[in-house]
Amino acid sequence: MSLEKLIKPKSIAIVGVSEKPGFGRNTAMSALKSKNTDRIYFVNPNRDNLFGKECYESITKLPEVVDCVVLCTSKNTIPGILEEAGTFGIKSAIVFASGFSEEGSNEGIQLENEIIEISNKYNIKVLGPNCMGAINNVDKINLWAGHTHWDLDDNNHGIAIIAQSGFIAAEILNTDFINVTYGISSGNGSVVALEEFLEFMIEDESVSVIALYLEGIKDATRFTRALKMAAEIRKPVIVLKSGRSIKGAISAASHTGSLAGSHKSYQSVFEKYGVITAETLDEFMCLAQTLSVLKGNFAEKTTYAAISFSGGESTLIADIAEENDIELAELFEETKIEMKKYLPEFATPKNPLDATTALFRDEEKIVGLLKTLNNDINVGSIIVGANVKREKDDTTSLLCKSIARAKNEGVTKPILAVPSLEGYRYRESRRILEDAGVPLMSSVGIALSCINKLSRFVEYDYKKNVLKIAAHRKNIEKEAIALSEFDSKKELEKNGVPIPVQAIVNNIEELTVVINEIKYPLVLKINSSEILHKSDVGGVKININNKEEAVIAFNEILENVRKNAPTAQSDGILVQQMAPFGVEIIIGVSNDKQFGPMLLVGLGGVFVEVFKDAVISPVPINKDEAFRMLKKLKSFKLLNGYRGSEACDIDSLTDLMVNISEYAYKNSEVLKEMDLNPVFVYPEGKGVCAVDALIVKYID
Amino acid sequence: MSLEKLIKPKSIAIVGVSEKPGFGRNTAMSALKSKNTDRIYFVNPNRDNLFGKECYESITKLPEVVDCVVLCTSKNTIPGILEEAGTFGIKSAIVFASGFSEEGSNEGIQLENEIIEISNKYNIKVLGPNCMGAINNVDKINLWAGHTHWDLDDNNHGIAIIAQSGFIAAEILNTDFINVTYGISSGNGSVVALEEFLEFMIEDESVSVIALYLEGIKDATRFTRALKMAAEIRKPVIVLKSGRSIKGAISAASHTGSLAGSHKSYQSVFEKYGVITAETLDEFMCLAQTLSVLKGNFAEKTTYAAISFSGGESTLIADIAEENDIELAELFEETKIEMKKYLPEFATPKNPLDATTALFRDEEKIVGLLKTLNNDINVGSIIVGANVKREKDDTTSLLCKSIARAKNEGVTKPILAVPSLEGYRYRESRRILEDAGVPLMSSVGIALSCINKLSRFVEYDYKKNVLKIAAHRKNIEKEAIALSEFDSKKELEKNGVPIPVQAIVNNIEELTVVINEIKYPLVLKINSSEILHKSDVGGVKININNKEEAVIAFNEILENVRKNAPTAQSDGILVQQMAPFGVEIIIGVSNDKQFGPMLLVGLGGVFVEVFKDAVISPVPINKDEAFRMLKKLKSFKLLNGYRGSEACDIDSLTDLMVNISEYAYKNSEVLKEMDLNPVFVYPEGKGVCAVDALIVKYID
Repeated sequence: MSLEKLIKPKSIAIVGVSEKPGFGRNTAMSALKSKNTDRIYFVNPNRDNLFGKECYESITKLPEVVDCVVLCTSKNTIPGILEEAGTFGIKSAIVFASGFSEEGSNEGIQLENEIIEISNKYNIKVLGPNCMGAINNVDKINLWAGHTHWDLDDNNHGIAIIAQSGFIAAEILNTDFINVTYGISSGNGSVVALEEFLEFMIEDESVSVIALYLEGIKDATRFTRALKMAAEIRKPVIVLKSGRSIKGAISAASHTGSLAGSHKSYQSVFEKYGVITAETLDEFMCLAQTLSVLKGNFAEKTTYAAISFSGGESTLIADIAEENDIELAELFEETKIEMKKYLPEFATPKNPLDATTALFRDEEKIVGLLKTLNNDINVGSIIVGANVKREKDDTTSLLCKSIARAKNEGVTKPILAVPSLEGYRYRESRRILEDAGVPLMSSVGIALSCINKLSRFVEYDYKKNVLKIAAHRKNIEKEAIALSEFDSKKELEKNGVPIPVQAIVNNIEELTVVINEIKYPLVLKINSSEILHKSDVGGVKININNKEEAVIAFNEILENVRKNAPTAQSDGILVQQMAPFGVEIIIGVSNDKQFGPMLLVGLGGVFVEVFKDAVISPVPINKDEAFRMLKKLKSFKLLNGYRGSEACDIDSLTDLMVNISEYAYKNSEVLKEMDLNPVFVYPEGKGVCAVDALIVKYID
Repeated sequence: MSLEKLIKPKSIAIVGVSEKPGFGRNTAMSALKSKNTDRIYFVNPNRDNLFGKECYESITKLPEVVDCVVLCTSKNTIPGILEEAGTFGIKSAIVFASGFSEEGSNEGIQLENEIIEISNKYNIKVLGPNCMGAINNVDKINLWAGHTHWDLDDNNHGIAIIAQSGFIAAEILNTDFINVTYGISSGNGSVVALEEFLEFMIEDESVSVIALYLEGIKDATRFTRALKMAAEIRKPVIVLKSGRSIKGAISAASHTGSLAGSHKSYQSVFEKYGVITAETLDEFMCLAQTLSVLKGNFAEKTTYAAISFSGGESTLIADIAEENDIELAELFEETKIEMKKYLPEFATPKNPLDATTALFRDEEKIVGLLKTLNNDINVGSIIVGANVKREKDDTTSLLCKSIARAKNEGVTKPILAVPSLEGYRYRESRRILEDAGVPLMSSVGIALSCINKLSRFVEYDYKKNVLKIAAHRKNIEKEAIALSEFDSKKELEKNGVPIPVQAIVNNIEELTVVINEIKYPLVLKINSSEILHKSDVGGVKININNKEEAVIAFNEILENVRKNAPTAQSDGILVQQMAPFGVEIIIGVSNDKQFGPMLLVGLGGVFVEVFKDAVISPVPINKDEAFRMLKKLKSFKLLNGYRGSEACDIDSLTDLMVNISEYAYKNSEVLKEMDLNPVFVYPEGKGVCAVDALIVKYID
């Protein structure tokens, strides 16, 4: 069943309307600002009339079965009223009260479970509990338990905000800085989870951008299915994920009871699906506003020309652009010659351009410059320093008009207006720009960080990624056992992973047979699923070149293990051909509680351990994704012919990564973790070899 | 001669006052807002009277020899008027006109030289040219060629702004966000350079914080002498350095003709002197405001407790704090028990704290919580989420009053108020906080970045650093020659650097003698200042264990060099004892054009080359600075007993760094660069050894 009646109700009952401060009063005041108030009913058994509207005694006394009932009453009344609403045939509800599962108390959890049960019984779509309500700026329905600027103007660019924090939602709706089409405070999301609102907003055609404040999700499969849909129709999803740090995750848990999950896992899922991530509320809002105003006017390349009217500002833009990995375009000579027509003699045409204050009030020349930059095929987008002030200011008003005119006279490339200082910008100037499709962004630090993220979104192509992940495990706390090295590698071999020739021997006789079949030099290792650090117990002997050495090694290993790990169960001794050295790679898989197996890749030794130079991705991945993972490593250079050494066989390495990712995907329900460490990567055309491996599986 | 007459003039003449828009009109309007306008005179030969004031025909017709003359006229008139002023006995001037050296034209440079000559002749202190003027909020003198909010109130916290960009200065003075005590747009600084203004502001007692927008300096010695003075009296200097990137440096050069210099050199100088650096204008202003409001109320430790009234906000603060390396304090159990008194039952006492909206309007409880946190000795400062809006808002007003009350009732630790969204904050609320010594910072992203910088400033102790640098070279373009490896190492040995035993041999006879004196194994290398990559030409043989091998190696090296580097001059063959391997370190020195020799240290091999993991510092340094340099390396772990290996002899390594830094300091006039690569560092107590070295000196 869809959320139609919850988000777009045609008739509404507000239960608990009151003249006293609180949810009842706030929501009534908001509701009365809705476009059509005829079918909004107030319920309060102790009042005849409030705010000029009749008060009904109860839901059952209403003149119609409303689409949505809004409960402004205290937590203990909720199950009763919901039951009544269900019986009456009402199919959606908003519950503001808090004190449920987010408190962690048995009583709160119990009460929330009652709500869930009743909702399921009657098929009621419930928003909340522990939420701030919803606004719908398409149908002009305001069910927000606080103040909003939603009705400030009709400049509706299609931003849908879904927030797991009422405060965050309220802060955004309470500023006159951006306008939203839908605003949803999803609260505990125990009946209708955030994932379902996300689906609704992706499907709703009046929404052009979705901004999601996220503490944690409940259903990774549904969440990523929604993200896939958004990626395919290229509807931008911006996420402000909190609980990224350890203390933040603890805080999120006690706030909406969300499991924050591993931030790295979330980040890698977001990358797979082309989700734009914000780190602060300022970035979140700036990105939402920018993308909504651009309305799909995305650049063909992620290079920028920047104009400002001051040397100081140009210089800062150049610095901060570089610090945010923003590429300033190399202008063509023809462009520079053309630019000179519009510049005073003492100004130099370059990028970033100091157009000097001489041009600050010269509409013709500003338009001319913008058109000139628009014609340079090296330029993707144009950044204009526009220091729109808090109050009306003639100079910046004129600048905004000039930019709008250029846009209206055929500048097809995106123009991004960037002020140098923080602060609310004069509304009229902002509107002039927005109407021409030019976003007036936050100040230069925040704006350029957002522009970098915009670039990544523009470059994203969903067709290049495998847009699926392994279902998350239902029962992650199961016991698990490690396979021995021999068994781990045998399993890998079955799945097409190159490993050294290997055999298990239990005595000298078997050893004698085996060493005739494997080429020297050999490695002998104790084969035990109970000894994870074999070298530490003297369980490894390398560089064995003849039978005599092999026998000595065999005996020594047995003795060492007897001495150093007397209780460990062993399963013979592993004899393996010693692989020639290559560049050492670590490939690992760990099973994320929500997003399933995560593939990790990094260079062995200090690179992963000291520099933390590793990259993860949900599985499965394709070859292109594997290659992009490698390229993200700082140590990628070492694979690519560092200091005259031969370039590594990246083709085989990415094949291996894809292979492992598919293995992990297929085995997501049984695989706890795996570790290929090291994998030797040989020069181009010479392949790879998994020298040591460990697979840990859940016990069924 | 001091800048007294320029910055604190008792009488002023404004030349070129006009009713038409431009410098003349703007400056006159500003000047009339000064506290005392009796001794402000207007000069315009074509007017009798302007803005209610008499106009004089020329400077010489003024009733007194004014302290300062302000020139609002065009560039070509400047030398003439300045000559006239000099003759008349005027000792300071402000010149707004642009079109001088910053344009790069011969004509502009010539005209600026004329100004410099006249100023020197008559001892006139000139601000500009190419500037926006100055304001002095102590004596209430306004000589600014634009609009400012300087006179908005008397809330004068002692910020001095010195900016090399008129635009940057104007943006700051034009916001009602911060108030400045002095504002100086230093322009081209051809007569009075920025360094001199800096000295003035450090010495002026009404200044508590200096905010410096810097494109480049002219005199490193004077600049660092001023920074030393500031460090010693603990007056914070905040620098926004632009021209950090390559394109930014080009932009700065054409703006005020500044040489941006190496950003890394600047950064390392700033660290030595405890200068606080901002990356954006928002940070710059936020830091200036924060430090000025704190008025020296610095925490004893850099740990923070954070309170907000929303779970979403707490969670974000925790995340962004961690991302900005801000340490959240571990609260004592006693503190948590005490906190419970003020919190609703469902709230958990922790850090960061979600005090819940239940407390939002409860002054007593907010004050109680702040006092409780103040008593916890693990807490250094307290961050309070204070979402002060643009307009008056009762809830946040009450919150501000509660915070101010807590501060006035004995909360001695710094409190920092942090809103969640960008924007100008309601002035009255801001004032309530500021009067209590609580800064209302920028929104959380910017604020927490600034708080991290504040922490570093609080930790800084000038006594732990050698506060001097080598004078910069006057003639950096001189020719230079490389010493041979033998000579380079001999020079190092003279200066106490451990090197392997070495000798030079020119023939087999000499070789035979020498090998009896040096222990095997040996290394033989071609000794030539013209062959920098000896291995590449076959000029190195290692692991030589007897005479026979030594003779073969000698002959082979000579032959290889004859073949591969036929034109190179050689100075015999270097025979050296082969040092045992240790952890490889690179120590280098390069001579910065402004700040003199810079010492570089990093781990050898991929660490410096691929990960760019190196740290620099101006010389000389002490042992403590050397150790802090090492600790900043990401690869520091590898020196400190990584994975069970022995810890390195860091004591000897830091001695070596100090030693090299002192050598570079003493030789700053002749040393172009030096390179000790590798230096082997042995386990604790076993010392270091410079295995290869290169010194390049200027030819006198």
